[in-house]
Amino acid sequence: MEKFEVKAYGTQSAETPLKQLNIERREATPKDVEIDILFCGVCHSDLHTARNDWGGTIYPAVPGHEIVGRVTKVGSEVSKFKVGDLAAVGCLVDSCRECSSCKQDLEQYCIPGFTGTYNSKDKHLGTRTYGGYSEKVVVDEHFVLKVPENLDPAATAPLLCAGITTWSPLRHWKVGKGSNVAVVGLGGLGHMAIKLAKALGANVTLFSRSPEKEKDAFELGAHAVVISTDEEQMLKVSGKFDLIIDTVPYVHDTNHYIPTLNINGTIVLVGYLGPLDPMLHTVPMIMGRKSVAGSLIGGIAETQEMLDFCGEHNIVSEIELIKMQDINEAYERMLKSDVRYRFVIDMNSLKN
Amino acid sequence: MEKFEVKAYGTQSAETPLKQLNIERREATPKDVEIDILFCGVCHSDLHTARNDWGGTIYPAVPGHEIVGRVTKVGSEVSKFKVGDLAAVGCLVDSCRECSSCKQDLEQYCIPGFTGTYNSKDKHLGTRTYGGYSEKVVVDEHFVLKVPENLDPAATAPLLCAGITTWSPLRHWKVGKGSNVAVVGLGGLGHMAIKLAKALGANVTLFSRSPEKEKDAFELGAHAVVISTDEEQMLKVSGKFDLIIDTVPYVHDTNHYIPTLNINGTIVLVGYLGPLDPMLHTVPMIMGRKSVAGSLIGGIAETQEMLDFCGEHNIVSEIELIKMQDINEAYERMLKSDVRYRFVIDMNSLKN
Ligand SMILES: [Zn+2]
Ligand SMILES: [Zn+2]
Ligand SMILES: [Zn+2]
Ligand SMILES: [Zn+2]
Repeated sequence: MEKFEVKAYGTQSAETPLKQLNIERREATPKDVEIDILFCGVCHSDLHTARNDWGGTIYPAVPGHEIVGRVTKVGSEVSKFKVGDLAAVGCLVDSCRECSSCKQDLEQYCIPGFTGTYNSKDKHLGTRTYGGYSEKVVVDEHFVLKVPENLDPAATAPLLCAGITTWSPLRHWKVGKGSNVAVVGLGGLGHMAIKLAKALGANVTLFSRSPEKEKDAFELGAHAVVISTDEEQMLKVSGKFDLIIDTVPYVHDTNHYIPTLNINGTIVLVGYLGPLDPMLHTVPMIMGRKSVAGSLIGGIAETQEMLDFCGEHNIVSEIELIKMQDINEAYERMLKSDVRYRFVIDMNSLKN
Repeated sequence: MEKFEVKAYGTQSAETPLKQLNIERREATPKDVEIDILFCGVCHSDLHTARNDWGGTIYPAVPGHEIVGRVTKVGSEVSKFKVGDLAAVGCLVDSCRECSSCKQDLEQYCIPGFTGTYNSKDKHLGTRTYGGYSEKVVVDEHFVLKVPENLDPAATAPLLCAGITTWSPLRHWKVGKGSNVAVVGLGGLGHMAIKLAKALGANVTLFSRSPEKEKDAFELGAHAVVISTDEEQMLKVSGKFDLIIDTVPYVHDTNHYIPTLNINGTIVLVGYLGPLDPMLHTVPMIMGRKSVAGSLIGGIAETQEMLDFCGEHNIVSEIELIKMQDINEAYERMLKSDVRYRFVIDMNSLKN
């Protein structure tokens, strides 16, 4: 298989900072789209993978799965894209295409497992997949998204992970006009959840532990902010929410939010990976047919739907643009939640 | 308010056995139906309430919320029933009628709280409500169900709690032809879940720890039995079930069943009241948009729907008929799961 070298930013071990290195990309096959990367969002998963926090990282690791760029080459069988198109790649670059999940446009739940944009087995080159902290990426057109030209491409990048991760549960649980939605946590995911739920017509409440987040929440479109440590405020929203999107990535008490769910309500966890500690109590769930669920990013068709919706409603992420060379400092700031609300790398900085 | 005395069976304390006593019933008001009780099923809640296992029992306590009988009197405004009708009363005898739940026919989730058939505040007499271990009961017609005349009235009684508790989740999660449903635990609830799910057209699997339950499960209509302690059998049903109805009333590991859920699947807990120990892990839920939910009995309209469905499909409970005087022994046997699958009291035994 023909290959070419591109500049990238990655790491050779869990302990070392990211630095410039070269990686190989395949020459576009008939189904492939080659993209010149303009911007790449910085997701918490990037950091966790670089540092092997979840285990399973194979080095060198090149993170980045919030990719926006221009199409520079298309394979002979590509029908959706042409050279010059604004295109995007999210968390998935391949899947089996044949399982019941893939056939339902739920590639994120591909039964044999999807191919992640980084740190997955690369079916073409036999190496690992390398992400968007690089000059170019080559992806099967099925996994490439069209980007509405009216959106700021830098601020669009985070839609590919933070956006779709909150969009998918909003759609699956049928949020629309008049729905009462709450969002737990105001970070990369939380701020997108507020914008998207509001645009869908929902009444949106932010649960936060920090009163100082109130101003931002209202600016993002929240109709109310409830300080989750204030028992009186919590009581006032008892039985209110049809859907709670819980974006908090660290362990916290899910039981605390169950009483604020409406009958038939669901709290969906999209941020926290681990055991529910303290233990989830069944009685408040049984007494109102309430559910606790998990949700992972979204499928390709659903991601396109989200991008089109964002184009129509002029929705993008709030971002802070950085240079590729600043990535290690950005990771440190991200760990302290010192970002409003997503870092995006101007990939031009890598080319010079 | 006019009252009359009836014979009943109840207890004066958590420590003493049930014995015969007299209780008062109100004379039927214009909206009320007076029922001569023919049969009353014996539910685990009866025992837990009699023994104050959950706290909150006020004595004397007269259990029983699986009631079938003949209408002996109707109030002047009653339109649904006439004297001589076969009628039933389940777990609820009243609710606020005005809250959002009541207006959606979800009286079991009445926001200010429904009036339970026993051990609730009696709005008419100011005392506690007393259940079906008695000669007669007087109930507002809204909470009285019609019993199909083709069903055996004794074996119909358990439909009023065990039946509706499993019917409601089957309907809420839209089980129908081709659905894959699993049932955890083969007792009063579990055996009804198998019968009802099968009649709805589902493929039904029983999860059990006891291989000796296999024969019964197949006779009840299960298509498969999976021994839940056998890892190989569990692996074979990985990703299979759209809905799992977990009827087990004691603490057990919910995590064990999550991998057997299909994408978008739900495990609904209807038997266990308490914390999920060991802690529920979010990753297997996130990796397939899986839910853990609770569900409580069912609404009145839904209970009537279930009874009508059982009439059409000739579905009743498997029962062992006992005399009222045998109730204390029946409780002991129930604690050892020594019943196939529900005790029902022949209330004639109280009259003599
Ligand atoms: Zn991400
Ligand atoms: Zn697949
Ligand atoms: Zn019961
Ligand atoms: Zn109500």
